[in-house]
Amino acid sequence: RSVREVLFFPSPPCCTEELLAEAEAEGCDGRPAPCPCPLPRSDCAFTRLLRRLLSARRSLELCLFAFSSPELGRAVSVLHRRGVRIRVVTDSQYMALRGSQIGVLRLLGIQVRHNQDVAFMHHKFAIVDKKMLITGSLNWTMEAIHSNRENVVIVEDAEIVRPYLDEFERIWEEYDPG
Amino acid sequence: RSVREVLFFPSPPCCTEELLAEAEAEGCDGRPAPCPCPLPRSDCAFTRLLRRLLSARRSLELCLFAFSSPELGRAVSVLHRRGVRIRVVTDSQYMALRGSQIGVLRLLGIQVRHNQDVAFMHHKFAIVDKKMLITGSLNWTMEAIHSNRENVVIVEDAEIVRPYLDEFERIWEEYDPG
Ligand SMILES: [Zn+2]
Ligand SMILES: [Zn+2]
Repeated sequence: RSVREVLFFPSPPCCTEELLAEAEAEGCDGRPAPCPCPLPRSDCAFTRLLRRLLSARRSLELCLFAFSSPELGRAVSVLHRRGVRIRVVTDSQYMALRGSQIGVLRLLGIQVRHNQDVAFMHHKFAIVDKKMLITGSLNWTMEAIHSNRENVVIVEDAEIVRPYLDEFERIWEEYDPG
Repeated sequence: RSVREVLFFPSPPCCTEELLAEAEAEGCDGRPAPCPCPLPRSDCAFTRLLRRLLSARRSLELCLFAFSSPELGRAVSVLHRRGVRIRVVTDSQYMALRGSQIGVLRLLGIQVRHNQDVAFMHHKFAIVDKKMLITGSLNWTMEAIHSNRENVVIVEDAEIVRPYLDEFERIWEEYDPG
Protein backbone atom coordinates (compact mmCIF):
# COMPACT_ATOMS: atom_id res chain seq x y z
CA ARG A 1 0.00 0.00 0.00
CA SER A 2 1.45 3.32 -1.09
CA VAL A 3 2.49 6.05 1.33
CA ARG A 4 0.22 9.05 1.98
CA GLU A 5 1.33 11.07 4.97
CA VAL A 6 0.73 14.66 6.03
CA LEU A 7 3.02 16.43 8.52
CA PHE A 8 2.43 19.76 10.20
CA PHE A 9 4.99 22.04 11.77
CA PRO A 10 6.18 23.50 14.10
CA SER A 11 7.29 20.09 15.27
CA PRO A 12 7.18 19.59 19.04
CA PRO A 13 10.69 19.21 20.50
CA CYS A 14 11.89 15.60 20.31
CA CYS A 15 15.21 13.76 20.20
CA THR A 16 16.62 13.34 16.67
CA GLU A 17 20.08 12.31 17.88
CA GLU A 18 19.30 8.62 18.36
CA LEU A 19 17.69 8.34 14.94
CA LEU A 20 20.64 9.99 13.19
CA ALA A 21 23.31 8.17 15.23
CA GLU A 22 21.62 4.86 14.41
CA ALA A 23 21.56 5.71 10.69
CA GLU A 24 25.25 6.66 10.86
CA ALA A 25 26.12 3.39 12.60
CA GLU A 26 24.36 1.27 9.97
CA GLY A 27 26.61 -1.57 8.90
CA CYS A 28 28.90 -1.13 11.94
CA ASP A 29 29.19 -3.51 14.86
CA GLY A 30 27.23 -2.58 17.94
CA ARG A 31 24.76 0.20 18.44
CA PRO A 32 25.40 3.84 19.34
CA ALA A 33 25.07 4.81 23.01
CA PRO A 34 21.65 6.15 23.94
CA CYS A 35 21.38 9.97 23.75
CA PRO A 36 21.51 11.57 27.20
CA CYS A 37 19.27 14.51 26.23
CA PRO A 38 15.97 14.99 28.10
CA LEU A 39 13.82 15.39 24.96
CA PRO A 40 11.00 12.90 24.35
CA ARG A 41 11.71 9.96 21.98
CA SER A 42 8.17 9.95 20.66
CA ASP A 43 7.31 10.39 17.02
CA CYS A 44 7.07 14.00 15.97
CA ALA A 45 6.72 15.66 12.57
CA PHE A 46 10.47 16.21 12.35
CA THR A 47 11.51 12.60 13.17
CA ARG A 48 8.89 11.38 10.71
CA LEU A 49 10.37 13.58 7.99
CA LEU A 50 13.90 12.36 8.82
CA ARG A 51 12.78 8.73 8.71
CA ARG A 52 11.24 9.15 5.25
CA LEU A 53 14.48 10.68 3.97
CA LEU A 54 16.66 8.04 5.62
CA SER A 55 14.63 5.36 3.83
CA ALA A 56 16.44 6.28 0.57
CA ARG A 57 18.45 3.40 -0.91
CA ARG A 58 19.31 4.53 -4.44
CA SER A 59 18.63 8.20 -5.20
CA LEU A 60 17.59 11.49 -3.66
CA GLU A 61 16.68 14.63 -5.57
CA LEU A 62 16.47 17.79 -3.47
CA CYS A 63 14.94 20.97 -4.86
CA LEU A 64 15.11 23.44 -1.98
CA PHE A 65 14.92 27.19 -1.67
CA ALA A 66 16.60 27.14 1.76
CA PHE A 67 18.62 24.41 3.46
CA SER A 68 20.23 25.28 6.80
CA SER A 69 18.98 22.62 9.24
CA PRO A 70 22.05 20.77 10.63
CA GLU A 71 19.98 17.64 11.32
CA LEU A 72 18.70 17.48 7.74
CA GLY A 73 22.26 18.14 6.55
CA ARG A 74 23.43 15.20 8.65
CA ALA A 75 20.70 12.96 7.21
CA VAL A 76 21.78 13.83 3.66
CA SER A 77 25.45 13.16 4.56
CA VAL A 78 24.51 9.72 5.89
CA LEU A 79 22.75 8.90 2.65
CA HIS A 80 25.70 10.12 0.59
CA ARG A 81 28.07 7.88 2.57
CA ARG A 82 25.66 4.99 2.09
CA GLY A 83 26.07 5.41 -1.69
CA VAL A 84 22.70 7.02 -2.45
CA ARG A 85 23.00 9.25 -5.56
CA ILE A 86 22.17 12.75 -4.39
CA ARG A 87 21.51 15.80 -6.55
CA VAL A 88 20.65 19.20 -5.10
CA VAL A 89 19.02 22.23 -6.76
CA THR A 90 18.87 25.39 -4.71
CA ASP A 91 18.51 29.17 -4.74
CA SER A 92 21.67 31.22 -5.26
CA GLN A 93 20.65 34.02 -2.90
CA TYR A 94 19.73 31.84 0.04
CA MET A 95 22.72 29.56 -0.53
CA ALA A 96 25.09 32.42 0.26
CA LEU A 97 23.58 33.10 3.70
CA ARG A 98 25.29 32.08 6.91
CA GLY A 99 24.33 28.63 8.16
CA SER A 100 23.49 27.21 4.75
CA GLN A 101 24.24 23.48 4.54
CA ILE A 102 24.95 23.70 0.80
CA GLY A 103 28.68 24.38 1.27
CA VAL A 104 28.97 21.39 3.61
CA LEU A 105 27.29 19.10 1.08
CA ARG A 106 29.56 20.33 -1.72
CA LEU A 107 32.65 19.62 0.39
CA LEU A 108 31.41 16.04 0.72
CA GLY A 109 31.30 15.78 -3.07
CA ILE A 110 27.52 16.10 -3.51
CA GLN A 111 26.45 17.73 -6.78
CA VAL A 112 24.68 21.08 -6.34
CA ARG A 113 23.25 23.40 -9.00
CA HIS A 114 21.52 26.74 -8.56
CA ASN A 115 19.71 29.49 -10.46
CA GLN A 116 21.61 32.46 -11.89
CA ASP A 117 18.79 35.03 -11.96
CA VAL A 118 16.99 37.15 -9.39
CA ALA A 119 13.71 35.19 -9.41
CA PHE A 120 13.50 32.69 -6.57
CA MET A 121 14.03 28.96 -7.00
CA HIS A 122 11.26 28.64 -4.43
CA HIS A 123 10.49 24.89 -4.62
CA LYS A 124 10.73 22.84 -1.43
CA PHE A 125 10.51 19.24 -2.53
CA ALA A 126 12.48 16.00 -2.34
CA ILE A 127 12.13 12.76 -4.28
CA VAL A 128 13.26 9.51 -2.66
CA ASP A 129 14.26 6.58 -4.90
CA LYS A 130 12.30 8.17 -7.79
CA LYS A 131 9.05 7.07 -6.20
CA MET A 132 8.28 9.03 -3.04
CA LEU A 133 7.59 12.77 -3.18
CA ILE A 134 8.02 15.02 -0.13
CA THR A 135 6.64 18.52 -0.80
CA GLY A 136 4.99 21.48 0.91
CA SER A 137 5.65 24.89 2.41
CA LEU A 138 8.56 23.79 4.61
CA ASN A 139 12.00 25.21 3.94
CA TRP A 140 14.73 23.07 5.49
CA THR A 141 15.59 25.57 8.21
CA MET A 142 15.44 25.40 12.00
CA GLU A 143 13.00 28.30 12.06
CA ALA A 144 10.58 26.51 9.72
CA ILE A 145 10.83 23.22 11.60
CA HIS A 146 10.60 24.55 15.15
CA SER A 147 8.69 27.86 14.92
CA ASN A 148 6.57 28.35 11.80
CA ARG A 149 3.22 26.93 10.77
CA GLU A 150 4.17 24.66 7.86
CA ASN A 151 2.88 21.61 5.99
CA VAL A 152 4.50 18.68 4.21
CA VAL A 153 2.72 16.02 2.19
CA ILE A 154 4.39 12.71 1.35
CA VAL A 155 2.99 10.58 -1.47
CA GLU A 156 4.00 7.67 -3.68
CA ASP A 157 1.28 8.27 -6.28
CA ALA A 158 3.15 8.01 -9.63
CA GLU A 159 0.73 10.43 -11.30
CA ILE A 160 1.92 13.10 -8.86
CA VAL A 161 5.58 12.07 -8.44
CA ARG A 162 6.30 11.83 -12.19
CA PRO A 163 5.71 15.54 -12.98
CA TYR A 164 7.96 16.55 -10.06
CA LEU A 165 10.73 14.26 -11.35
CA ASP A 166 10.35 15.82 -14.82
CA GLU A 167 10.45 19.31 -13.29
CA PHE A 168 13.62 18.37 -11.41
CA GLU A 169 15.32 17.12 -14.59
CA ARG A 170 14.29 20.29 -16.47
CA ILE A 171 15.77 22.51 -13.76
CA TRP A 172 18.87 20.30 -13.43
CA GLU A 173 19.60 20.77 -17.15
CA GLU A 174 18.75 24.46 -17.12
CA TYR A 175 21.09 25.15 -14.21
CA ASP A 176 23.98 23.19 -15.73
CA PRO A 177 26.94 25.56 -15.40
CA GLY A 178 28.95 23.69 -18.06
CA ARG B 1 -12.53 9.97 -10.87
CA SER B 2 -10.82 12.20 -8.34
CA VAL B 3 -8.63 15.15 -9.28
CA ARG B 4 -4.83 14.85 -9.22
CA GLU B 5 -3.13 17.75 -10.91
CA VAL B 6 0.35 19.26 -10.64
CA LEU B 7 1.10 22.83 -11.72
CA PHE B 8 4.50 24.45 -12.11
CA PHE B 9 5.32 28.12 -12.10
CA PRO B 10 6.37 30.62 -13.38
CA SER B 11 3.24 30.47 -15.50
CA PRO B 12 3.70 31.58 -19.11
CA PRO B 13 1.83 34.82 -19.82
CA CYS B 14 -1.80 34.17 -20.76
CA CYS B 15 -5.12 36.02 -20.64
CA THR B 16 -6.97 35.65 -17.34
CA GLU B 17 -9.42 38.48 -18.05
CA GLU B 18 -11.90 36.42 -20.07
CA LEU B 19 -12.00 33.69 -17.45
CA LEU B 20 -12.61 36.15 -14.60
CA ALA B 21 -15.11 38.29 -16.55
CA GLU B 22 -17.06 35.17 -17.42
CA ALA B 23 -17.15 34.09 -13.78
CA GLU B 24 -18.31 37.58 -12.77
CA ALA B 25 -21.08 37.52 -15.39
CA GLU B 26 -22.42 34.15 -14.20
CA GLY B 27 -26.18 34.35 -13.81
CA CYS B 28 -26.39 37.56 -15.87
CA ASP B 29 -27.87 37.91 -19.36
CA GLY B 30 -25.39 37.84 -22.19
CA ARG B 31 -21.68 37.26 -22.14
CA PRO B 32 -18.87 39.69 -21.46
CA ALA B 33 -17.10 41.23 -24.45
CA PRO B 34 -13.95 39.38 -25.52
CA CYS B 35 -10.75 40.73 -23.97
CA PRO B 36 -8.76 42.86 -26.43
CA CYS B 37 -5.37 41.95 -24.92
CA PRO B 38 -2.82 40.16 -27.12
CA LEU B 39 -2.01 37.40 -24.62
CA PRO B 40 -2.66 33.77 -25.62
CA ARG B 41 -5.95 32.17 -24.45
CA SER B 42 -4.33 28.78 -24.03
CA ASP B 43 -4.31 26.92 -20.75
CA CYS B 44 -1.47 27.89 -18.49
CA ALA B 45 -0.65 27.04 -14.87
CA PHE B 46 -2.27 30.27 -13.68
CA THR B 47 -5.59 29.84 -15.54
CA ARG B 48 -5.71 26.23 -14.35
CA LEU B 49 -5.30 27.38 -10.76
CA LEU B 50 -8.00 30.04 -11.22
CA ARG B 51 -10.38 27.48 -12.73
CA ARG B 52 -9.95 25.12 -9.78
CA LEU B 53 -10.72 27.94 -7.35
CA LEU B 54 -13.69 29.18 -9.38
CA SER B 55 -15.18 25.68 -9.21
CA ALA B 56 -16.09 26.32 -5.53
CA ARG B 57 -19.84 26.14 -4.85
CA ARG B 58 -20.16 26.01 -1.06
CA SER B 59 -16.95 26.79 0.85
CA LEU B 60 -13.38 27.95 0.48
CA GLU B 61 -10.73 27.87 3.20
CA LEU B 62 -7.60 29.88 2.46
CA CYS B 63 -4.47 29.50 4.59
CA LEU B 64 -1.94 31.81 2.97
CA PHE B 65 1.30 33.41 4.05
CA ALA B 66 1.09 36.06 1.32
CA PHE B 67 -1.86 37.15 -0.82
CA SER B 68 -1.31 40.09 -3.16
CA SER B 69 -2.28 38.83 -6.63
CA PRO B 70 -5.14 41.05 -7.91
CA GLU B 71 -6.43 38.25 -10.16
CA LEU B 72 -6.64 35.79 -7.28
CA GLY B 73 -8.27 38.53 -5.19
CA ARG B 74 -10.84 38.98 -7.95
CA ALA B 75 -11.51 35.24 -8.08
CA VAL B 76 -12.15 35.15 -4.33
CA SER B 77 -14.47 38.19 -4.60
CA VAL B 78 -16.49 36.43 -7.30
CA LEU B 79 -16.90 33.39 -5.06
CA HIS B 80 -17.94 35.56 -2.13
CA ARG B 81 -20.60 37.27 -4.26
CA ARG B 82 -21.79 33.84 -5.41
CA GLY B 83 -22.47 32.93 -1.77
CA VAL B 84 -19.51 30.62 -1.19
CA ARG B 85 -18.53 30.67 2.50
CA ILE B 86 -14.96 31.97 2.61
CA ARG B 87 -12.58 31.93 5.56
CA VAL B 88 -9.05 33.29 5.36
CA VAL B 89 -6.07 32.67 7.65
CA THR B 90 -2.95 34.70 6.96
CA ASP B 91 0.33 36.04 8.33
CA SER B 92 0.18 39.32 10.24
CA GLN B 93 3.52 40.61 8.97
CA TYR B 94 2.87 40.03 5.30
CA MET B 95 -0.73 41.24 5.59
CA ALA B 96 0.51 44.73 6.47
CA LEU B 97 2.59 45.09 3.29
CA ARG B 98 1.53 47.27 0.37
CA GLY B 99 -0.47 45.42 -2.26
CA SER B 100 -1.93 42.82 0.11
CA GLN B 101 -5.41 41.72 -0.95
CA ILE B 102 -6.42 40.99 2.65
CA GLY B 103 -7.77 44.50 3.28
CA VAL B 104 -9.86 44.32 0.11
CA LEU B 105 -11.37 40.99 1.16
CA ARG B 106 -12.17 42.32 4.63
CA LEU B 107 -13.97 45.33 3.12
CA LEU B 108 -16.16 42.86 1.21
CA GLY B 109 -17.10 41.23 4.51
CA ILE B 110 -14.92 38.13 4.21
CA GLN B 111 -13.71 36.74 7.55
CA VAL B 112 -9.95 36.92 8.05
CA ARG B 113 -7.85 35.77 11.00
CA HIS B 114 -4.09 36.00 11.50
CA ASN B 115 -1.30 35.00 13.88
CA GLN B 116 -0.21 37.31 16.69
CA ASP B 117 3.38 36.12 17.12
CA VAL B 118 6.63 36.55 15.21
CA ALA B 119 6.80 33.01 13.81
CA PHE B 120 5.48 32.82 10.26
CA MET B 121 2.07 31.43 9.36
CA HIS B 122 3.84 30.02 6.31
CA HIS B 123 1.18 27.67 4.91
CA LYS B 124 0.05 28.18 1.30
CA PHE B 125 -3.00 26.01 0.89
CA ALA B 126 -6.66 26.27 -0.09
CA ILE B 127 -9.54 23.83 0.36
CA VAL B 128 -12.45 23.93 -2.08
CA ASP B 129 -15.86 22.62 -0.96
CA LYS B 130 -14.13 20.63 1.84
CA LYS B 131 -12.95 18.10 -0.72
CA MET B 132 -10.23 19.52 -2.98
CA LEU B 133 -6.85 20.56 -1.60
CA ILE B 134 -4.59 23.03 -3.40
CA THR B 135 -1.14 23.19 -1.78
CA GLY B 136 2.54 23.77 -2.54
CA SER B 137 5.28 26.39 -2.47
CA LEU B 138 3.28 29.11 -4.24
CA ASN B 139 2.45 32.28 -2.37
CA TRP B 140 -0.44 34.15 -3.99
CA THR B 141 1.73 36.97 -5.30
CA MET B 142 2.48 38.21 -8.81
CA GLU B 143 6.17 37.52 -8.29
CA ALA B 144 5.51 33.88 -7.38
CA ILE B 145 3.10 33.35 -10.27
CA HIS B 146 5.06 35.09 -13.01
CA SER B 147 8.73 34.90 -11.94
CA ASN B 148 9.61 32.20 -9.42
CA ARG B 149 10.04 28.45 -9.75
CA GLU B 150 7.05 27.14 -7.78
CA ASN B 151 4.85 24.05 -7.52
CA VAL B 152 1.22 23.40 -6.68
CA VAL B 153 -0.43 20.03 -6.24
CA ILE B 154 -4.21 19.62 -6.38
CA VAL B 155 -5.80 16.48 -4.94
CA GLU B 156 -9.19 15.19 -3.84
CA ASP B 157 -7.80 12.25 -1.85
CA ALA B 158 -9.73 12.40 1.47
CA GLU B 159 -6.81 10.87 3.38
CA ILE B 160 -4.76 13.92 2.44
CA VAL B 161 -7.47 16.61 2.45
CA ARG B 162 -8.85 15.68 5.89
CA PRO B 163 -5.67 16.53 7.88
CA TYR B 164 -5.44 19.90 6.12
CA LEU B 165 -9.08 20.66 7.01
CA ASP B 166 -8.34 19.74 10.62
CA GLU B 167 -5.23 21.93 10.61
CA PHE B 168 -7.29 24.81 9.21
CA GLU B 169 -9.90 24.44 11.97
CA ARG B 170 -7.16 24.28 14.65
CA ILE B 171 -5.58 27.48 13.37
CA TRP B 172 -8.97 29.16 12.91
CA GLU B 173 -9.78 28.57 16.58
CA GLU B 174 -6.30 29.49 17.77
CA TYR B 175 -6.39 32.82 15.89
CA ASP B 176 -9.87 33.73 17.15
CA PRO B 177 -9.46 37.31 18.38
CA GLY B 178 -12.64 37.09 20.49
ZN1 LIG C 1 18.57 13.28 22.36
ZN1 LIG D 1 -6.87 39.35 -22.03
